[in-house]
Amino acid sequence: MKNIGILGSTGSVGRQSLEVIRKHPDKFNIIFLSANQNVDLLIEQSKEFKPQYICIGDKDKSRKLKSSLDAINILIGENGLIELCTNNDCDIILNAIVGYNGLAPTLKIIESGIDLALSNKESIVQAGHLVMKSKKDKNINIFPVDSEHSALWQCLIGEDESTIKKLILTASGGPFRKLSKEKFNDITKEDALNHPNWDMGNKISIDSATMMNKGFELIEAYWLFEIPVNQIQIVVHPQSIIHSMVEFIDGSIKAQLSEPDMKIPIQFALSYPKRYEIKDIDFSIEKFSKLSFEEVDLDKFKCVKLAYNALQSENSYLTVLNVANDLLVSLFLKDKITFNMIPEYIERAMDKHYSINNPNISEIKKLTKWTKDFIERKINI
Amino acid sequence: MKNIGILGSTGSVGRQSLEVIRKHPDKFNIIFLSANQNVDLLIEQSKEFKPQYICIGDKDKSRKLKSSLDAINILIGENGLIELCTNNDCDIILNAIVGYNGLAPTLKIIESGIDLALSNKESIVQAGHLVMKSKKDKNINIFPVDSEHSALWQCLIGEDESTIKKLILTASGGPFRKLSKEKFNDITKEDALNHPNWDMGNKISIDSATMMNKGFELIEAYWLFEIPVNQIQIVVHPQSIIHSMVEFIDGSIKAQLSEPDMKIPIQFALSYPKRYEIKDIDFSIEKFSKLSFEEVDLDKFKCVKLAYNALQSENSYLTVLNVANDLLVSLFLKDKITFNMIPEYIERAMDKHYSINNPNISEIKKLTKWTKDFIERKINI
Repeated sequence: MKNIGILGSTGSVGRQSLEVIRKHPDKFNIIFLSANQNVDLLIEQSKEFKPQYICIGDKDKSRKLKSSLDAINILIGENGLIELCTNNDCDIILNAIVGYNGLAPTLKIIESGIDLALSNKESIVQAGHLVMKSKKDKNINIFPVDSEHSALWQCLIGEDESTIKKLILTASGGPFRKLSKEKFNDITKEDALNHPNWDMGNKISIDSATMMNKGFELIEAYWLFEIPVNQIQIVVHPQSIIHSMVEFIDGSIKAQLSEPDMKIPIQFALSYPKRYEIKDIDFSIEKFSKLSFEEVDLDKFKCVKLAYNALQSENSYLTVLNVANDLLVSLFLKDKITFNMIPEYIERAMDKHYSINNPNISEIKKLTKWTKDFIERKINI
Repeated sequence: MKNIGILGSTGSVGRQSLEVIRKHPDKFNIIFLSANQNVDLLIEQSKEFKPQYICIGDKDKSRKLKSSLDAINILIGENGLIELCTNNDCDIILNAIVGYNGLAPTLKIIESGIDLALSNKESIVQAGHLVMKSKKDKNINIFPVDSEHSALWQCLIGEDESTIKKLILTASGGPFRKLSKEKFNDITKEDALNHPNWDMGNKISIDSATMMNKGFELIEAYWLFEIPVNQIQIVVHPQSIIHSMVEFIDGSIKAQLSEPDMKIPIQFALSYPKRYEIKDIDFSIEKFSKLSFEEVDLDKFKCVKLAYNALQSENSYLTVLNVANDLLVSLFLKDKITFNMIPEYIERAMDKHYSINNPNISEIKKLTKWTKDFIERKINI
């Protein structure tokens, strides 16, 4: 029986993790759940999974929680969240918070010596150097939840990482793979939220449309697998069946594939080193009948190029990239900016910031504030 | 430094294994080479690799060998071959003999407690139950050299075999994948030897054209990985890029892929658990740009169906299948029978033989003789 804490249980990955856990009550036990806003779903989840602790980010909503669930310890806000991250009853904590607010919990979980199932890729993008240093100091495991990194990890099981020639990250190419560059500025929020292959949250859907998601995954792969950036290739694979590949020095390539379903990587991060049954996800000649690969068009998908550039610069570029993207995506979702302004203002912020290598947490906070202020000032909101 | 013996060094796999070994003189050392007929190439190989022993199958050719290579111990015929199989200076012996003559050496290598790199799939097809029992008794390793089984093995590294849902063997479909069933009887030797993807020996090219090769691989997978036959699926994949796949109980699938080049599985069988560099075999968006899967047409490729049937019957069916195919292919290569007579007479022999389960070596010899006699009598040669 594995004891599990879930941060962000009402989000897309959080909900799917509970689907997985629901199927294996003899193998997983929930210690805590947390949500930022969705108090009704958190109440429902808590009644079903009976955690010892729950945490709600929004203080105003805590009263409703208390009146509905009197037998459970209720924590509130950022302090509550951080307290959960020190709960050593957990064998593993899933950080499924979306956006750059996931960083502090990630660092706290590692510092507490608890294994981390990481869905919040922004933690690594923003401060990969700190996360990886702390991981090594504390000798804990980080299990990737992203389908691509789970694929790389699965392909590397039992292999010697010194024999890696290349990591090959596959990308669906998002909904605008075939759209001409000229039409990119007319892309609406509704267009962008309509992803062909994956059922995802709003933020990640926009990141997929700009392909910044793939840029983040590039950065995540760079840190998690400690591979030089020139040994990581992004390849467009529109069917989202092959989730990523590892090429070895002998020319052998291993790929992990499946129908696009986040339950597989989520469960593997929680069940590793074991695999448990998931029903009704099968190899299918029909669904897999045509698989293809294409180059990424870096002229169209500028966010990918920005991610490559950031990785080849001082680490502060990564923080700025991430914070700027987070804010710009939220502005795009509020119809305040156009689609093309996302990469444009990320690049401006990256160019203008005072760059440093290996920023510490206080410097990252300053960079975060600077980036937000810069974007808000430039965009006049 | 690994000490290696090679049986069948002048055949297709034997020659390619020496190509691999030539590139890594610091890692591999040749203890012996053997050939059946090709004395000139054996002399050339011996001068280059300086083995301690060589063996020639054809007695008449041993004089030429002796006059050319006076510093090397020369063995002759079947007895010589078997003596090589007991050479404990070898860390591993590659059995690259083609056809059912490979069985006795396979059993002798295992009995001598030496690890086996197995290219001779007929050993396993003919007497998988004996090979696997002996392997367990002697606690040695059998490393598959076939690209498909190497793929399955590579996909299973670090995984728990009890979590296998299905082995998915890929098949190019051979040169007649698109030919209508009605035209099968007009297939000539020349048509059949012209394989689109792989550079192979003659016998294996015909087995690929009838898809009996895939039938043998099915049987080999059944024994090597100890998986029930209903958990092994054959899928046509015309590009020969994905060499096979393993589907796990959680829906995750691992595949091994590369350009079609036997050097990869040959080297991996010799280098395992390490991987050594092979230059100029790389992932390529162009070459991998379209990958597809199709069902196997069991009406057209009767040999595949015969292999499935044999696996579901007593083990003597497997011996008859193998011996009959070996003889019939050689008759087809001599233009003595038509293409369709290959499966037809295999089926007749299977139907008519006196079936037993788990035949011992003496019974296998009797079955072999019976099968040859039966085919020769029926075909009137």
